[in-house]
Amino acid sequence: MASTGLFDTDTLVTPLGDGRYSATLSDRWNALGGAPNGGYSLAMTVSALAHLMRPLGLPDPLTVSSFFLRRAATGAAELRASIARVGKRTATAEAQLWQGGDEIVRTTATFADLAQARGRTLALTAPPVLPPPEDCLELTGGRRLPGVTIVDRVEIRCPERPGWTQGKPSGNPSALFWMRFTDGRDADTRALPSLVDACAPVVMELGARTSSTIELTTHVRARPAPGWLACRVVTRHVIAGYHDEDFEIWDSTGQLVAQSRQLALMPPDDA
Amino acid sequence: MASTGLFDTDTLVTPLGDGRYSATLSDRWNALGGAPNGGYSLAMTVSALAHLMRPLGLPDPLTVSSFFLRRAATGAAELRASIARVGKRTATAEAQLWQGGDEIVRTTATFADLAQARGRTLALTAPPVLPPPEDCLELTGGRRLPGVTIVDRVEIRCPERPGWTQGKPSGNPSALFWMRFTDGRDADTRALPSLVDACAPVVMELGARTSSTIELTTHVRARPAPGWLACRVVTRHVIAGYHDEDFEIWDSTGQLVAQSRQLALMPPDDA
Repeated sequence: MASTGLFDTDTLVTPLGDGRYSATLSDRWNALGGAPNGGYSLAMTVSALAHLMRPLGLPDPLTVSSFFLRRAATGAAELRASIARVGKRTATAEAQLWQGGDEIVRTTATFADLAQARGRTLALTAPPVLPPPEDCLELTGGRRLPGVTIVDRVEIRCPERPGWTQGKPSGNPSALFWMRFTDGRDADTRALPSLVDACAPVVMELGARTSSTIELTTHVRARPAPGWLACRVVTRHVIAGYHDEDFEIWDSTGQLVAQSRQLALMPPDDA
Repeated sequence: MASTGLFDTDTLVTPLGDGRYSATLSDRWNALGGAPNGGYSLAMTVSALAHLMRPLGLPDPLTVSSFFLRRAATGAAELRASIARVGKRTATAEAQLWQGGDEIVRTTATFADLAQARGRTLALTAPPVLPPPEDCLELTGGRRLPGVTIVDRVEIRCPERPGWTQGKPSGNPSALFWMRFTDGRDADTRALPSLVDACAPVVMELGARTSSTIELTTHVRARPAPGWLACRVVTRHVIAGYHDEDFEIWDSTGQLVAQSRQLALMPPDDA
């Protein structure tokens, strides 16, 4: 069993029956702008889905697609979840996060039991090459960004500080870094679809001050070993303000454990 | 306005009111195994969504995520579609394809008007380098695969024939090729989320005989210019039978028009 921590406390959902759940969005996972981080909001939908999947014995969110409909706010929320299909090895379901009569996030996900996966494995690519975490630097060098609390929950260590953190965007929208929960909770498959969104977008290196995620899909590829996670992030296409961001997470044994892609929009007046 | 062809005829949906549509899956888009191609099945959901979006003036499926729940069959189908949110520049909706009381495909999509997109464009990558289509070879060299009708609808031309088409998988799960509808219909943004799934999976080069898509997300990045489409496909991670497949489509002017990623499963006894 994975260790527990604030991520578990802050993504608890209380079943109300009939696929409905109550929850409270904490202010401990706020991103730029002071609102709950998108990855944190979607974690609520994954919690509800995980509850639906528990009797089916399918603990791992294999593929998770979330649409971000409105800005989340700290405070009370409701979840509405329902199964689409239960198969032999997987099941698919949908969960919606609602606040004050508005739908905030809609997630569809297929769950599986990755311990039961029996198929070929081929090493076609290699994990990111990074100096050990103890030789790396904290992302912001301890500087506080007003209202951004997620930096106290998720620690990021990089070989060198990104240009944007020093007011000098490098023009290269990619990054390699280590990541972990600051409270020592190890990442599990339930946390990975949130962790792929836990860092500032790499378009900050293009001078963007912010970016709004429209859709984010994560494929969870394996159960992570305990310890630091090595991350590789890149934006490859910026077209008319829309940009992709691909995020890979590799565990401490050098195994790919999650890969995500998001489509996001930079405000037209940005950068 | 884009040209029309069999793709339009075969993805027609008839509104029944209240977000319901009737449709018929043709046998003209069958993939390996003789069932309707996944990209074709999802085109039905995109048709229903496009109908919902018409009064909103949002013609372009910006981001489309489909979960493949059951195998589709030729014949009658019903669609159920509903709006999740209408915003200023985008709207998000969901559509389900049902056959005989079973849900087959569930698609969530955000639509936009790409002609109105006003933001930065940065050229960070380059289109695939391919000899002109007239110097390339038809994928199967005119050989017929039993029951596979989609090869008569979508033409694929490659610099050299993939090893798997000659019984000699190369071991390299990637490909570059040209693609177009055989009947001369030009691709538009509505066709792109289907075209990213119109070719045999590149894991055929690993000896796989088949692969089942679990989830497929397409981001449509621009309206394609008329003419041939240049495609770049790669599978990067094969883990316990699950594999990704990234598919890019570039238009005849060298513009990226769509990028997709799917998670799929090779049968355990395969390859």
